Amino acid sequence: MNTQEIMNILWLIFEIIGTVAFAISGALLAVEKENDIFGVLFLGVTTAVGGGIMRDILTGELPPKAFQDPVYVLIAAVTSLIVFFLMYFTKGNIRKKLAMADAVINVFDAVGLGVFTIFGMNAAAELGHGENLFLRLFVGMITGVGGGIIRDILVREIPSVLCKRIYAVASLIGGLIYYLLVKLGMNAGVANFIGAASIFIIRMLASKFRWDLPKVDLDK
Amino acid sequence: MNTQEIMNILWLIFEIIGTVAFAISGALLAVEKENDIFGVLFLGVTTAVGGGIMRDILTGELPPKAFQDPVYVLIAAVTSLIVFFLMYFTKGNIRKKLAMADAVINVFDAVGLGVFTIFGMNAAAELGHGENLFLRLFVGMITGVGGGIIRDILVREIPSVLCKRIYAVASLIGGLIYYLLVKLGMNAGVANFIGAASIFIIRMLASKFRWDLPKVDLDK
Amino acid sequence: MNTQEIMNILWLIFEIIGTVAFAISGALLAVEKENDIFGVLFLGVTTAVGGGIMRDILTGELPPKAFQDPVYVLIAAVTSLIVFFLMYFTKGNIRKKLAMADAVINVFDAVGLGVFTIFGMNAAAELGHGENLFLRLFVGMITGVGGGIIRDILVREIPSVLCKRIYAVASLIGGLIYYLLVKLGMNAGVANFIGAASIFIIRMLASKFRWDLPKVDLDK
Repeated sequence: MNTQEIMNILWLIFEIIGTVAFAISGALLAVEKENDIFGVLFLGVTTAVGGGIMRDILTGELPPKAFQDPVYVLIAAVTSLIVFFLMYFTKGNIRKKLAMADAVINVFDAVGLGVFTIFGMNAAAELGHGENLFLRLFVGMITGVGGGIIRDILVREIPSVLCKRIYAVASLIGGLIYYLLVKLGMNAGVANFIGAASIFIIRMLASKFRWDLPKVDLDK
Repeated sequence: MNTQEIMNILWLIFEIIGTVAFAISGALLAVEKENDIFGVLFLGVTTAVGGGIMRDILTGELPPKAFQDPVYVLIAAVTSLIVFFLMYFTKGNIRKKLAMADAVINVFDAVGLGVFTIFGMNAAAELGHGENLFLRLFVGMITGVGGGIIRDILVREIPSVLCKRIYAVASLIGGLIYYLLVKLGMNAGVANFIGAASIFIIRMLASKFRWDLPKVDLDK
Repeated sequence: MNTQEIMNILWLIFEIIGTVAFAISGALLAVEKENDIFGVLFLGVTTAVGGGIMRDILTGELPPKAFQDPVYVLIAAVTSLIVFFLMYFTKGNIRKKLAMADAVINVFDAVGLGVFTIFGMNAAAELGHGENLFLRLFVGMITGVGGGIIRDILVREIPSVLCKRIYAVASLIGGLIYYLLVKLGMNAGVANFIGAASIFIIRMLASKFRWDLPKVDLDK
């Protein structure tokens, strides 16, 4: 295999990891909210493919890719069912385990955010909007955060994009880095990884060091 | 009239029943949530045509049929106003009456779920996706459950698709039955009814016998 | 400058006022809900351009105008940041100031409702739906109220369209007035203003005199 082929396979693996990560985050949230097995499946799949569906609606690529090609829905469905049965057959305190899982999810979720942002930007470019940085950053961001927004609205949580540290901002900064690297002549495959990785790293640093953006103190 | 004409008329009647049923469910929920007459109208219409609008967005058939042809919005609007004025001029305890209405609504809602699922599947087929079972099942399901999701989000309830017994699952199973019957050579008109009826029956049985899907007990 | 040019400039000013007004309403709500600076920015921009994005999705004009041309997002972003920093550097009781701001917002919001409704109706006409009054009224209404619906769902408030006095109704009545004036031969530019102004005036009168639509009293 040459470098290009290896990178294509790596990228596919990352896409699957992103899908799995988002499905896990949706499925676990559904378990927390005491939904039944179908609710867990529905929320897991919706979280995993929701961002891509929003991207396809906004770019007019309809029906959405997720509806045309079952593979990502299948991956998300299997993931969600595994999450459900793991929790179902687990002995002992589930609430404690869900709290522990949160830290793991946070890492996977950041992978998904990174991978899907870059995917969204590339999808916009393939539709002839390669030169419109503004549009590509927004389509990328929506692809990255859209599934989580739908997930949180469905279970009546405040969307993490509004309250999680440096979430959409990480998507925009990494998207900009990716755009500039390609502009500067970097191989697109390598730039894909660096863009997604920079989003992942910014999110992880923000979580680790509890970076907070400024806030208005209502009771000052 | 020949059989085909009778079936076309029956099907139209079912479509109207589905629209009316969904409008009633939205209008009653708005009354329960103490919205004014316009809120009742808005929620009734949105519930009745929301699933079809989501279907048209996802299949790229824009503007949505509900915007182009006023008849279904009109039916839903008149239904919602009748619900409002019935409640407005009713004497005695409204809360009690709303609770009694729930059982009736549940039946009508199941009719709507059945009819709209099959409509959605047929709409997808007419757009050239006849062979893509996966896409048709999803488009059908969204057509069936979409209006209820929008309704529940607007009044900040957890969407019934996440918590009602065998709801989206009934749509998927009935959709699959319909698909197989047509594949096996059954007349499409007859298959329409059997598909919608099987969704209705599964929902009613699940309600009646309180079928529960498995759930993770957080406090085991 | 001739009359037409003056009116074009006035209309552009109104469009900017509408964008600014909606951005302020979203940004202030985000401050109230104790979001950080990015949450304020996100909600301000979403409120300002959300109605237009819903209009473009429903009419199939994709990618949405807001994604293709950064100017309205920029105006909304700058507005939201100004709101944030004004609140951030303000001394004294913020809660009191937010309450006072509500009255001012209500006025600006009504300007936005008026301007965006007429914009939406015109956009539908430009796409060849000029004769379909029903479609144009609905597209106009969604353009006017859509951003507010998204804003309220994201922060888990009941959408103002369901609970604010004569909100969507004002959009529909003003839209009808506009349509009739153009039909009667009035200059479209003048009709634009009268349509938007009539929506604004209906909303202001409804607020001022606390016009209430009838409601079902659940405890009668």
